[in-house]
Amino acid sequence: MIVTFTDFGASGPYLGQMELAVRRVAPQVPVFHLMADAPAFDPFSSAYLLAALARDMPTGAVLLGVVDPGVGGERSPLVAKADGIWLVGPDNGLFEAMMRRCEDLAVWAIHWRPKRMSATFHGRDLFAPVAARLALGQTPAEIGCRPVPPPLHVDWPEDLGAVVYVDHYGNAWTGLRAASVPETAEIEVAGRRLSRRRTFGDVPAGQAFWYENSSGLVEIAVNGGRADSLDGVGPGAIVTIC
Amino acid sequence: MIVTFTDFGASGPYLGQMELAVRRVAPQVPVFHLMADAPAFDPFSSAYLLAALARDMPTGAVLLGVVDPGVGGERSPLVAKADGIWLVGPDNGLFEAMMRRCEDLAVWAIHWRPKRMSATFHGRDLFAPVAARLALGQTPAEIGCRPVPPPLHVDWPEDLGAVVYVDHYGNAWTGLRAASVPETAEIEVAGRRLSRRRTFGDVPAGQAFWYENSSGLVEIAVNGGRADSLDGVGPGAIVTIC
Amino acid sequence: MIVTFTDFGASGPYLGQMELAVRRVAPQVPVFHLMADAPAFDPFSSAYLLAALARDMPTGAVLLGVVDPGVGGERSPLVAKADGIWLVGPDNGLFEAMMRRCEDLAVWAIHWRPKRMSATFHGRDLFAPVAARLALGQTPAEIGCRPVPPPLHVDWPEDLGAVVYVDHYGNAWTGLRAASVPETAEIEVAGRRLSRRRTFGDVPAGQAFWYENSSGLVEIAVNGGRADSLDGVGPGAIVTIC
Repeated sequence: MIVTFTDFGASGPYLGQMELAVRRVAPQVPVFHLMADAPAFDPFSSAYLLAALARDMPTGAVLLGVVDPGVGGERSPLVAKADGIWLVGPDNGLFEAMMRRCEDLAVWAIHWRPKRMSATFHGRDLFAPVAARLALGQTPAEIGCRPVPPPLHVDWPEDLGAVVYVDHYGNAWTGLRAASVPETAEIEVAGRRLSRRRTFGDVPAGQAFWYENSSGLVEIAVNGGRADSLDGVGPGAIVTIC
Repeated sequence: MIVTFTDFGASGPYLGQMELAVRRVAPQVPVFHLMADAPAFDPFSSAYLLAALARDMPTGAVLLGVVDPGVGGERSPLVAKADGIWLVGPDNGLFEAMMRRCEDLAVWAIHWRPKRMSATFHGRDLFAPVAARLALGQTPAEIGCRPVPPPLHVDWPEDLGAVVYVDHYGNAWTGLRAASVPETAEIEVAGRRLSRRRTFGDVPAGQAFWYENSSGLVEIAVNGGRADSLDGVGPGAIVTIC
Repeated sequence: MIVTFTDFGASGPYLGQMELAVRRVAPQVPVFHLMADAPAFDPFSSAYLLAALARDMPTGAVLLGVVDPGVGGERSPLVAKADGIWLVGPDNGLFEAMMRRCEDLAVWAIHWRPKRMSATFHGRDLFAPVAARLALGQTPAEIGCRPVPPPLHVDWPEDLGAVVYVDHYGNAWTGLRAASVPETAEIEVAGRRLSRRRTFGDVPAGQAFWYENSSGLVEIAVNGGRADSLDGVGPGAIVTIC
């Protein structure tokens, strides 16, 4: 199974073209899209979101992650195996949180190149065929990959105290795992202090709070309203634990 | 085959996370999304839309329907079999029109619970695994379901005289089945009376009319224009038959 | 494998209903969506986009293309085989560029009609079942199709000197193949002359340029910005080669 995580947008031709590239190699492998509106051009914020969303992927599944502002530049293409899950994408930090948090990690650089590779769409031309071949059971060595040390960004934080995503309902996801926040802690965002609740129904209509969302992250929400309508609450807003 | 009907939005992580939960159990079962922008938090309007959209589902298919504003509250999770189609979702009325209109109906309450269940995303944690197991051929009893009387909302109308959805092209779908409207009837919406036509080309450019849309519902449309640009024509607008 | 190309929008019920119609006939055939936001009601612009996007489809795949403003009117439904790829959709020019550019072409008119066919959604009612049966290996003759001469629009240009699509990132795709533009040519659009570059990093931040995009088309872009924020650069803008 191949699961994609990208900033391509749900509309437009990019997701479909990448899926076509997968299916040319592996027509019968299930492919689906975990998220297509990851923080655009932002592997740093995306990393913390991806690690939370992918926590239930089954062993042997392939995560094809493409948030790749440096495409065509110096970043390198990688394959990793993190606690049994294959990761395929750029080495720009997108998989940082997954790689750091796993117990069993191996990383390879992709030396294979397709006959035709565009300057701007390695997701389709390079990463998709590699993901497809891993999904078919080929090994990294068979695909032209060589082991490398994990390319970790030691200066990145364990959790990210910032809003990384605002969902369809206006809820603001942060890059903080709720499990790493003290049970009784409040958070501060854009000059407001918010208390923890279990879910929406635990506060009066219109009140803001934070809770552990369904992916284990600290999420800012308003019962019956939109958190992103609060002044200063949006992607990039700093969130601190009080 | 599993078909989803949700208010999750086409963007964002929710559809993908629910599909991941299905595929952990049933990797090879076809899964696709009938609609992801059902009326948000509104099982009442959604019910009439769902019944129209799902009318051609094949026997044995599983409809995974999640419009679930009461998640975490008192509503119960259900499985139903309606004329050979499996329904899985909350008992909040979302399946009301389908259950009422079918000839052969059985309903079960889901007593099984997953080891980890979030407070806010039962679509992923509870309904998706149940749908996957039904798609694999397990029976409701094998999944921890017990027969219950159909949870019908006797005060809900047979058809809903209101706009329930505005599509990509600006056409306004109502909850009225065209077959239940007299052939020569006009409708009234937002102070306008509209006549019935067969299709767009039957009126001059710019003129509003109603017709039986491709899902059998009364739809308000404008030839070469957008019905939702007419004053007062939008989700919730009352539609009466004259 | 069935690949769709439509102007239905990524949201809404239309893609899902069409996929349901495919899966009623061919439940196990892979189906995915190459693009759902093709130029709306515009088979002319869509034709040049489609030919670029579909260039890597594998032999035997079925391209189900529905940009069909004349549905219910005089246009006819067709099946074509172009260099081994099946095309299914209206004969309104949507497949014009693909048919003209291929080396081996055969075309059929679809005479089969479903028992129930709506006035406005032939993508679901007529084209989807035909595509499904081709994907299962049936021949056009078995599906009720008869050979016809290719319905070509001889007055349409080989390449289209206009913006046909603006993507998620604000880049403006034209209908011009880069390979048919002299290597050193500039283009003019909305009163600006733009030089060719290989990719984004080849110009300073904020500068506009054109380049061969990942689908082989001339694309107008701004490094670190949005081309569609330039005055007059949007769908339909005329593009000339200088």
